[in-house]
Amino acid sequence: MSRIAYVNGRYLPHRQAAIHVEDRGFQFADGVYEVIGVQGGCLIDERPHLERLARSLAALSIKAPMGERSLAHVMRETVRRNRVRSGILYLQITRGVARRDHAFPADAAPSLVMTARGNTMRAQEIAEKGCVAITVPDIRWKRCDIKTVSLLANVLAKQQANDVAAFEAIQVDEDGFITEGSTTNVWIIGQDGVLVTRPADHAILDGVTRRAIITLAARAALIFEERAFSVDEAKAAAEAFLTGTTAFVMPVTRIDDSAIGDGVPGPFSLRLLADYMAHAAAGGDCS
Amino acid sequence: MSRIAYVNGRYLPHRQAAIHVEDRGFQFADGVYEVIGVQGGCLIDERPHLERLARSLAALSIKAPMGERSLAHVMRETVRRNRVRSGILYLQITRGVARRDHAFPADAAPSLVMTARGNTMRAQEIAEKGCVAITVPDIRWKRCDIKTVSLLANVLAKQQANDVAAFEAIQVDEDGFITEGSTTNVWIIGQDGVLVTRPADHAILDGVTRRAIITLAARAALIFEERAFSVDEAKAAAEAFLTGTTAFVMPVTRIDDSAIGDGVPGPFSLRLLADYMAHAAAGGDCS
Repeated sequence: MSRIAYVNGRYLPHRQAAIHVEDRGFQFADGVYEVIGVQGGCLIDERPHLERLARSLAALSIKAPMGERSLAHVMRETVRRNRVRSGILYLQITRGVARRDHAFPADAAPSLVMTARGNTMRAQEIAEKGCVAITVPDIRWKRCDIKTVSLLANVLAKQQANDVAAFEAIQVDEDGFITEGSTTNVWIIGQDGVLVTRPADHAILDGVTRRAIITLAARAALIFEERAFSVDEAKAAAEAFLTGTTAFVMPVTRIDDSAIGDGVPGPFSLRLLADYMAHAAAGGDCS
Repeated sequence: MSRIAYVNGRYLPHRQAAIHVEDRGFQFADGVYEVIGVQGGCLIDERPHLERLARSLAALSIKAPMGERSLAHVMRETVRRNRVRSGILYLQITRGVARRDHAFPADAAPSLVMTARGNTMRAQEIAEKGCVAITVPDIRWKRCDIKTVSLLANVLAKQQANDVAAFEAIQVDEDGFITEGSTTNVWIIGQDGVLVTRPADHAILDGVTRRAIITLAARAALIFEERAFSVDEAKAAAEAFLTGTTAFVMPVTRIDDSAIGDGVPGPFSLRLLADYMAHAAAGGDCS
């Protein structure tokens, strides 16, 4: 649990961290966010997270609440004050507080909130167990490439997974192709050894971990194809895994009622997990 | 502007009305709302609003924060403390405050917020001027029948209308059929005098004003068809209008570059506006 939250210029005890009831994040989901991994007290892949944040803000015409250098300072300070060594930093920016009206307010100042907390997940546990996923229809809006707090469909999908003790709900578009998990990107490795993930179109979020894996896969000389793939193809794959800031690289051992490969985490998935954990340990910017 | 806000058991000065940064309404758009008209200090169509609220809560498995009688009391008290005679009551319920995790928390108490404020719109002005609407692609999720605060797509649509000084953005599905406006339901009256609106499927919100109009149209002996209609059909219609709690019955005089009918509010629209204003004046429950 975050002990100190940053809220619009102040570091507050978590219990007192509040925003106004007419914040547009609360009334309209009119805001964006990032979840950034922390390893050894350092932020993992800070640069691509900040770049994506800038893209999300631009897509919604929300002004940045402060310059990037100041933002980076607050991020480090929030991690430090919460004494997080291994965990996550959560950062949310909304269009700010205004009299309720759908259209953009003329003069609202954007709201900025940050929290930080330790991880509960360990890479070793993941590697040993993998996870089970279910498939659900993707009912989300058509701009899932923007990392907004308009997450209700993701919440409902994740809860469906929870209801059957699965880790993730893999969302499927109307043509039977997998888009992404409720909090992760989805990957398969075919029986031919080819690594496949969906292109970063408007139907998915271009995950920072996703991008790291593309780089790591190239280093590992894996053959990689960026294309849409169906549920049937995923169920027939040799391996499948999920990626995300909190899931790292999570092998999928079962999708719905179908075991993936031998029903245990596969060698390529475990290799990429190990490579990613090394990247996370080394890639943190502690400056 | 609301002067007093009700927030989780307390009536607070508006400036101090705050919710926690980990309220799921703020982080996940995990909540629902209602906007209820106030006329003569009384709530218009309170019963159907409360019934819809119950349906929205049930659809998301959010517990009601209090019984209906208590809720009705707080609603009246919020209107009274804000001294609203003609205006709106805004009511929002979220799944509550919990450590950030997509799945439903085990033990969060739902949050309840209410505000109230006076109207800026007058029926007479509406009748004289009507409004201009544009059409935009409907990029929303697939459960628009639930009245959630996941409103970012509506916000972006409304802003597109604002950018060209239009009143409303009419959203259009992939087949070219009109779903609804960003804050209103859409109606047309064909050259044959038939009143048409889209059925209340998952693509639209079943507006309380929409339902009232269906009843009033029947009383006025208008022939009514509940079916999907295209943008082209709307542009060729004799009349078009929008309905909603804040828009009442708003004649549309132009859609994109096409004048509707004679380009002025049509007689059937004005008749339904008058009937609706009489309904609103008479239908308030002041008990």
